[in-house]
Amino acid sequence: MPNNSPLAALQARVAAVNDVLNAISVLTWDSRTMMPAGGAQTRGLQISTLTGLALELLLSPLTEAALAAAEQAVQELAPDALERSMVAQVQQAVAHHRRIPASLTQERAALRTVAQAAWIEARARSDFTLFAPHLEKTVALARRYADCAGWREHPYDAMVALYEPGETASSLKQLFATLRQGLLPLLAAAQAQPPRRRDFLFRDFPEAEQRSFGLALAEKLGFDLQRGRLDTTVHPFEVSFTREDVRITTRYRRDYLPASMFGTAHETGHALYEQGVDPAYTRSVFATDLIGLYAVGGTSFGAHESQSRLWENHVVRSRDFWRLHFTELQSHFPEQLADVTPDEFYAAVTHAEPGFIRVEADELSYDLHVMLRVDIECALMDGSLPVADLPGAWNAAIQRDLGLTVPNDAQGVLQDVHWSTGYIGSFPSYTIGNVMAAQLMAALQAQDSTLAPAIQSGHYAPLKAALGQAIWQHGRRFGREELLARSTGRGLDPAPYLAYLQTKYSPGTAHQ
Amino acid sequence: MPNNSPLAALQARVAAVNDVLNAISVLTWDSRTMMPAGGAQTRGLQISTLTGLALELLLSPLTEAALAAAEQAVQELAPDALERSMVAQVQQAVAHHRRIPASLTQERAALRTVAQAAWIEARARSDFTLFAPHLEKTVALARRYADCAGWREHPYDAMVALYEPGETASSLKQLFATLRQGLLPLLAAAQAQPPRRRDFLFRDFPEAEQRSFGLALAEKLGFDLQRGRLDTTVHPFEVSFTREDVRITTRYRRDYLPASMFGTAHETGHALYEQGVDPAYTRSVFATDLIGLYAVGGTSFGAHESQSRLWENHVVRSRDFWRLHFTELQSHFPEQLADVTPDEFYAAVTHAEPGFIRVEADELSYDLHVMLRVDIECALMDGSLPVADLPGAWNAAIQRDLGLTVPNDAQGVLQDVHWSTGYIGSFPSYTIGNVMAAQLMAALQAQDSTLAPAIQSGHYAPLKAALGQAIWQHGRRFGREELLARSTGRGLDPAPYLAYLQTKYSPGTAHQ
Repeated sequence: MPNNSPLAALQARVAAVNDVLNAISVLTWDSRTMMPAGGAQTRGLQISTLTGLALELLLSPLTEAALAAAEQAVQELAPDALERSMVAQVQQAVAHHRRIPASLTQERAALRTVAQAAWIEARARSDFTLFAPHLEKTVALARRYADCAGWREHPYDAMVALYEPGETASSLKQLFATLRQGLLPLLAAAQAQPPRRRDFLFRDFPEAEQRSFGLALAEKLGFDLQRGRLDTTVHPFEVSFTREDVRITTRYRRDYLPASMFGTAHETGHALYEQGVDPAYTRSVFATDLIGLYAVGGTSFGAHESQSRLWENHVVRSRDFWRLHFTELQSHFPEQLADVTPDEFYAAVTHAEPGFIRVEADELSYDLHVMLRVDIECALMDGSLPVADLPGAWNAAIQRDLGLTVPNDAQGVLQDVHWSTGYIGSFPSYTIGNVMAAQLMAALQAQDSTLAPAIQSGHYAPLKAALGQAIWQHGRRFGREELLARSTGRGLDPAPYLAYLQTKYSPGTAHQ
Repeated sequence: MPNNSPLAALQARVAAVNDVLNAISVLTWDSRTMMPAGGAQTRGLQISTLTGLALELLLSPLTEAALAAAEQAVQELAPDALERSMVAQVQQAVAHHRRIPASLTQERAALRTVAQAAWIEARARSDFTLFAPHLEKTVALARRYADCAGWREHPYDAMVALYEPGETASSLKQLFATLRQGLLPLLAAAQAQPPRRRDFLFRDFPEAEQRSFGLALAEKLGFDLQRGRLDTTVHPFEVSFTREDVRITTRYRRDYLPASMFGTAHETGHALYEQGVDPAYTRSVFATDLIGLYAVGGTSFGAHESQSRLWENHVVRSRDFWRLHFTELQSHFPEQLADVTPDEFYAAVTHAEPGFIRVEADELSYDLHVMLRVDIECALMDGSLPVADLPGAWNAAIQRDLGLTVPNDAQGVLQDVHWSTGYIGSFPSYTIGNVMAAQLMAALQAQDSTLAPAIQSGHYAPLKAALGQAIWQHGRRFGREELLARSTGRGLDPAPYLAYLQTKYSPGTAHQ
């Protein structure tokens, strides 16, 4: 980090913001893992106060003065100097927050609490009308926010920019059309395959054994427990309080083995990214999302998701992995898995069959779930879809893409938490993560012919090193497209992803 | 809390400070219970940033303006109005912090990290000379701090004021003289008693059973687990993040049963105080130590300690308690305690025998440990005892009061963490807690003749209600002496404490 005075002063301001945002993350982690029920209300107030302070620090006259001096100081530096990028990112964030009225931010925060409670109730009763008025307000506020933040072609662009800078409604439309064209025939072909054994996935798997296997799995993939922990929550997540303290959680279903196992692999992928950021970037703008007000080392939601999906699907959900490690799993569950071969296990966990729920979807139908949400978000943002018509639009899309009739709102339009927390525009990142994971995997293996054999023989350190070099170390210094260009020679490209799915899911390959 | 505008504005400022201080407490709790080792350094920076922000909030022009307006607004209120007390406490805190230069606060904070590391090393090697230079600096900075904060008779008075407002070197000298006169003969008499069976305390007690008994014990005493948790740490403590989330920790020694049991009872006493503060005081000055910059509902360290010692010693370390509940303990450890009677158990846990370590001391020698520390702190603060002479002074006092020859510094002058963290002046509160506990217990039982029989028959709710009424609900609205005057009719009085010890520890009573 810069050590000449004006830049050091700016860095000190950013470090303070980063400290506060990391504190918020600790408070949030605690509220989801440890906090007794009674603490919810005052914890919410504490987080709200800290969020306000982070924003005050960022927009304070002291930061303004430090920024002005730093702008001067970087004039004489090379165009690609680290310090220029630092100053530009702070400038951009300050300009962004100055465009959003504090009253709007407060209204959105206040609505979130109410809307989430309404969503929980609505989902429990499977009654969209209970949530609809809150979603109306959420959309109205999002539209006001988009107008303040600024957009050119579509108001949705301002929302996506929060999670996936550079993407727009239009760029996503193009990407999704290509993917849809590739996915639908693969899914149809998979459905035409003969049935596979899956009964053994639903046997009785005690949590303690699942946990010890999961912890060993996370370590095998490279998770550093000196700088991390694994805990249990209803909704799995990863969060970092600097690269030195990265925590993941998972959920154990006693009657369904894959949930915790692939969940742990997924969150480990996120955690490796955070643990792999250059230590020199700690507390800097390259480890802080100053626009989203979130202390994070990953450069976009999609880039982050690419790492979780890469380790979950390319590494752990692979035939090689289970041929190598199935006996370890069996040693934890000798009776439950006595009559199963590694290939049978692999076939079972790559079974493709459309369902109603996104988070339970297989690799072929997952992105179709995402696309329908993005279509709906766009239409809500430009006003072409009234909130009241949402369930109908949802159910029609599920019928069209997956051939399923949605039985009720809980299994349909009410299944995801995102909209109730004010998140509109975050869904595209899930699919972008899938695409980016395959693109990276293909490019890294092409660049280093020893990588694939290493993975095939259960040595994951070379992959970890390659991803650390290509992606993790850079933190938020580069945007997703620049990272991809530097590591794969081009921007986001769906071809390697479709090729990967084609190879993995074409009829006959599962039982080869 | 006030709802007219100038007071509401001041309350909003205090609430923000309280939120930040509670966040610091969460970060601290996490660092002692959950945090992976790698997180220590950046966690320290986060806490330091938040501490700076709390102070900035308190001393900001906005708070100053709100305070000035509030001062005007309370002029017309009754002299004992809540709002007057609120304004006065904020005024006092602002004035205090304005007297302490920021550079001094930073120097003290920076020294703490270094000094604590040196103390850990020094204690491990049992070599005081490794810690001495850091203690010299700590004392020098404490003296500078005392001069800034202000004192009249003795520089120690400024330090004690941080923990026990109203007490001075001189008032403590008087209290301690009375106690010493009462304690020494009791201790001598106890030592002359025939030996008791204690072998069974040192059998093998698996942690899980200790924990389940301890959790049931905490609930039995009234700890509300909807607003609290029990965790495991090396050094037990209690911390609250508002009354709605109060956490205690304990330490399990597999080879010594009393440690976790009485430790849990002790921390439960602290927790009951915090959980019992009037909900209307949440986030107010009456739940915030604005001088010590610590979010806490208890009014002084001594008042807090009175609640922990009351539940630990008057309730749980009583013959009645074990006559009622020993079978429950036996059900957790049927083999280990098969050959023990309730009275034998009570006799074993009230065995008085001088030792080197304060935290392991019995009720008769405990305060003698405290007094020698206070003598030393006074002498360090007024310069009459050079740091180099400290081990000699310590060892001489242990020889004089307890008749023991200190074998090494680790078991002598290096045993407590306090001085290494910059805490000078906090030891008196331990003894004040003991005195206050007995005084309260005697007064409450005298005021309500149904109280003692309820406790004797294992009903602790009436005691909880009485303490809630007399002490807990008031939070920090009143100082310790005012609380005592309102609930016992007088200020701190050692007579009930000496009477309690006389009854409990006189020869013959243990085996009555």
